[in-house]
Amino acid sequence: MKTTISALVENHPGVLSRVAGLFSRRGFNIDSLVVGTTETPDISRMTIVVEGDEHVVEQVKKQLNKLVDVIKVSTIAPEDSVSRELVLIKVDADIQTRKDIVSIAEIFRANIVDVSKKSMIIELTGDKDKITAFEELLRPFGIKELVRTGIIAMNRGNKTIKIEEED
Amino acid sequence: MKTTISALVENHPGVLSRVAGLFSRRGFNIDSLVVGTTETPDISRMTIVVEGDEHVVEQVKKQLNKLVDVIKVSTIAPEDSVSRELVLIKVDADIQTRKDIVSIAEIFRANIVDVSKKSMIIELTGDKDKITAFEELLRPFGIKELVRTGIIAMNRGNKTIKIEEED
Repeated sequence: MKTTISALVENHPGVLSRVAGLFSRRGFNIDSLVVGTTETPDISRMTIVVEGDEHVVEQVKKQLNKLVDVIKVSTIAPEDSVSRELVLIKVDADIQTRKDIVSIAEIFRANIVDVSKKSMIIELTGDKDKITAFEELLRPFGIKELVRTGIIAMNRGNKTIKIEEED
Repeated sequence: MKTTISALVENHPGVLSRVAGLFSRRGFNIDSLVVGTTETPDISRMTIVVEGDEHVVEQVKKQLNKLVDVIKVSTIAPEDSVSRELVLIKVDADIQTRKDIVSIAEIFRANIVDVSKKSMIIELTGDKDKITAFEELLRPFGIKELVRTGIIAMNRGNKTIKIEEED
């Protein structure tokens, strides 16, 4: 089972190292960990996808809450949230295959961001399943390079994960 | 000066903690650090945006190369690469302001991924400048929540950062 955890942390040097250290010491199985700035400059948000049962998720939340730089930890329910990842894929493409690749990209509403004689770079945003499906369709052409960001997620509707609870 | 560094690392537990620890111990100024899976399952790619002069960048590369899990470190030249970030922004939106927000989103080719009575979630992909400009335009409406992934980057054309050099 994969669970998405969103944590607000102080934007201090060393906070990423402490959180990553916690996960590696405790042997928690992390699918992805993304850290980025928020609407407040001195606060960062970490989105962590954890593999494990309810007990593991509770442990992760408990351990995170113990760290001084961690302000708030919440679980994001998949059925009530938006979850997205960005991927850049460089695929082999010549005059014969270019059209087919463009058609696949159009179906997925992906953007072609670079074209050269022998390759193309395609940018795609979506949830994990969409990105995996896209990758599988491109694989036969030859994937030269692939970079992905890891998942970021947000609750749908008016609910926010903030320091002071609203509403 | 900001420099983008791309590092291929072994997908071992603890590698993120070791890299993040190195940056925090040495006091390197990191703008963003993204780690994600690649086309090869046991190898991850880190994209690190470092703030500093040439000397700092050389130091970062040297220190990274010293870590056992680090396979390859390269600098990505901005003029010859594609650099992208993904952001989800939840903005206050009611029946009066919704249209204006949709127009702004259209100009930026952003996607509206959730609408509720009092808010909207917008997904945008772009380079740092585009995302900052978009954020500034939405700010007057009231930004409720913002999550961003950090920058990922890839060399344009046929050149790849791989373990075995091609061509």
